[in-house]
Amino acid sequence: MADLVPEAGMVPATREVLEDNRLRRDFVDDVVAALEADDSDGARALAAPLHPADIADLFELIPATYRQPLAEALGDTLDADVIAEMNDWVREALLDVLSASQVADVVSELDTDDAVSIVEELDPDEQREVLRALDPDDRAAIEEALSYPEESAGRLMQRELVAVPEHWSIGQVIDFLGLAPDLASDFWEIFVVDPGHKPIGTMRLSWVLTTPRSIAVADVMQREQSLIPVDLDQEEVAFRFQKYALISAAVVDPVGRLVGVITVDDIVHIIQDEASQDVLRLAGAGDGDINEPLRKTIPVRMWWLLINLGTAILASSVVAAFESTIAKLVTLAVLMPIVAGMGGNAATQTMTVTVRALATNQLTSSNSLRMIGRELAIACANGLGFGILMGIACQLVYHDTGLSLVLFAAMAINSLVAGLSGVIVPLVLERFEIDPAVTSTVFVTTMTDVMGFFSFLGLAALFGLTSTPG
Amino acid sequence: MADLVPEAGMVPATREVLEDNRLRRDFVDDVVAALEADDSDGARALAAPLHPADIADLFELIPATYRQPLAEALGDTLDADVIAEMNDWVREALLDVLSASQVADVVSELDTDDAVSIVEELDPDEQREVLRALDPDDRAAIEEALSYPEESAGRLMQRELVAVPEHWSIGQVIDFLGLAPDLASDFWEIFVVDPGHKPIGTMRLSWVLTTPRSIAVADVMQREQSLIPVDLDQEEVAFRFQKYALISAAVVDPVGRLVGVITVDDIVHIIQDEASQDVLRLAGAGDGDINEPLRKTIPVRMWWLLINLGTAILASSVVAAFESTIAKLVTLAVLMPIVAGMGGNAATQTMTVTVRALATNQLTSSNSLRMIGRELAIACANGLGFGILMGIACQLVYHDTGLSLVLFAAMAINSLVAGLSGVIVPLVLERFEIDPAVTSTVFVTTMTDVMGFFSFLGLAALFGLTSTPG
Repeated sequence: MADLVPEAGMVPATREVLEDNRLRRDFVDDVVAALEADDSDGARALAAPLHPADIADLFELIPATYRQPLAEALGDTLDADVIAEMNDWVREALLDVLSASQVADVVSELDTDDAVSIVEELDPDEQREVLRALDPDDRAAIEEALSYPEESAGRLMQRELVAVPEHWSIGQVIDFLGLAPDLASDFWEIFVVDPGHKPIGTMRLSWVLTTPRSIAVADVMQREQSLIPVDLDQEEVAFRFQKYALISAAVVDPVGRLVGVITVDDIVHIIQDEASQDVLRLAGAGDGDINEPLRKTIPVRMWWLLINLGTAILASSVVAAFESTIAKLVTLAVLMPIVAGMGGNAATQTMTVTVRALATNQLTSSNSLRMIGRELAIACANGLGFGILMGIACQLVYHDTGLSLVLFAAMAINSLVAGLSGVIVPLVLERFEIDPAVTSTVFVTTMTDVMGFFSFLGLAALFGLTSTPG
Repeated sequence: MADLVPEAGMVPATREVLEDNRLRRDFVDDVVAALEADDSDGARALAAPLHPADIADLFELIPATYRQPLAEALGDTLDADVIAEMNDWVREALLDVLSASQVADVVSELDTDDAVSIVEELDPDEQREVLRALDPDDRAAIEEALSYPEESAGRLMQRELVAVPEHWSIGQVIDFLGLAPDLASDFWEIFVVDPGHKPIGTMRLSWVLTTPRSIAVADVMQREQSLIPVDLDQEEVAFRFQKYALISAAVVDPVGRLVGVITVDDIVHIIQDEASQDVLRLAGAGDGDINEPLRKTIPVRMWWLLINLGTAILASSVVAAFESTIAKLVTLAVLMPIVAGMGGNAATQTMTVTVRALATNQLTSSNSLRMIGRELAIACANGLGFGILMGIACQLVYHDTGLSLVLFAAMAINSLVAGLSGVIVPLVLERFEIDPAVTSTVFVTTMTDVMGFFSFLGLAALFGLTSTPG
């Protein structure tokens, strides 16, 4: 075995530097102090015993100016495992200062999937240089992976895997594995393939180990398995892993040949990322990566705010159309933000639930109508409840029955608008294959703002409300 | 081996009923039509060949009234695997109609972790009855698991595991496994324990299979491993699995004895759930489960809206304080929603990024100040950019320099309020161990609404703006 070195554990000596799985602040401060004092040895002594994942965290937690000095202090300890764990932006900045051959050294130590995730982020020029510095086998593997679409199974998969023919016995499999020192370093399943290298079954290692040697592979293997097409989007890959509780799965090319394996540890961060993406997109915060350079973050945030400014101006033009109504009863200006705001909050609830249910495949065309009915019922309850509450409150404060009735009606109407738009907008966007997380908020808040102001001020105008209550 | 039956694969015969990993609508409709026509055999013929995860989905997708008939149609096919995959609410409703001994049958077929997840949801009375109907071993295992806190490692872990002494050779391990048919059905790691049953190392199965028989366990095992305390919160467990890319991990009791194992497939849904929880909580949508009964959903949603109504009334009272200012220049009422709305959107961006960064441990006390500085820089860019933009637009539309300057200043001020409150509120809440996802929105939107109206109307009052431009 190439790597029986610690890899996935927690180094006992580092325990006192962690608190709730995070590096303690005083520890991070000590490292920064050592770097500030040009004490490379001190910084190295502190950081080197950490688990690679914690060293990567350390790079993220210290200010950007100390990252280069820390890298120099660590020397060889800053290996491929650390770099693979790093945040994309921190890694990119660090790789920028390494030479192509140094990057190639790092890349050649990694499994294909980790190597690809580093190489794919490089500029085309750097990428070419690094690939040229790799040995031909590694180079071919990475180039092939890069030929698959971004965020596809082909980029995620490891090419190192164990495949055996169907006619072997379990004993032959065990002997084969014991004699072959150059196998994939870690694997969880053994694939059974036909002579054309098409997967026909799979065996978990625990089955191999608990089955008598004489039994045939064909009698142990599970014939049904989830085969991942090499160009499948990573979100769909992650979804299958979750749904079928997979630990690893075979990846096949378009003619059905086994070309790689994806393991669940490569999927876990995608599941996390995809769920995070939804919340960040609903809020218009782009990738929401706190290590992203400001020059990338600011345009993304501003672009979203600009679109929302458009919807705010649209809503404000509705108010402008009723200026004379407001002039007659300024209290309308006091109450109108409540109508619009309550609609917005109710719509956000519905929209968020709908977007998550769509993302987790709980909401499909089979139960869309039921979901709309459900949200309509909630909207009716909210509209009546809060409409009556605010109608009574308004009457108590302003003693103006007309105003109170208009407030009640506007809140009830806007609650329905909120509930219906909150569920229908994401459903329609999904149907047209537009990511509902990215675009729903704009449509839905426009609806509730515009309809909130329009229903409240429009009804007030219709009933001719003025500052001398009738 | 007890179960070499298909478990984690996709049944080929079901492929045509799936589209993008979801059950096709026409298939679901066919099942409903069969149930409607009292054609149990037809419904069973359609549903029975599905993978357990898809049968569970089918129950969720059909209207609630058809779930009981489908359960009857399926008979024995509705086994423990299907029930373990079901949504909590759908399962609860279904278990309600089963007798205690039927539930006990289902529970006894499952691994401890899945069994516990079913039993813990039952009413205390039902729970007692089901436990009584179980055989003593299963009962003891489940009762012990229930003695650990909810959402702790003790509830998640499986008690079935493989542990060997350090002094064995790899050959002895392989022989032991081959001769012991009653082992945990699936396992990924073998734990090495001392005579006191304390874990001292771990071996991945691939290492066992690729190491010569004569080598000692002590020379193969990895001594450093992440030991999970049995009372650790599941969110922390999930975090460790992610950070250290674990496939399985040993669970130890307070004196350090090995008591169970947690595998990554039990963790994947927690990672997904925790990320979903953040987005749903930020939106005040409770659990956001579309299968939750309305009588549970409506109070949660209303409670959140009621709190937000309070903040809306607070903001509206700020507007009320400036009624006379608005009466002099009604255009203020037209523009004020833009100031408040833009602040709210900018704050939501910052708040969402901060909450996610806290949840994923990227943001700790070590880099909080840097994060605040970062968001302040973004807020300055937004404030100046959109302040100037709207100032110019206002001048072009209303030809009122005073109004335009006030609008510019108010937008700049509110942008700073938004940026700072968006990052500081979640940080402070986290410091006081209050879930920032649940409470941030209320504080932050109150700040941007109140400050938006106050800065805009306050400045307008200060400069004595009236409808006849000076």
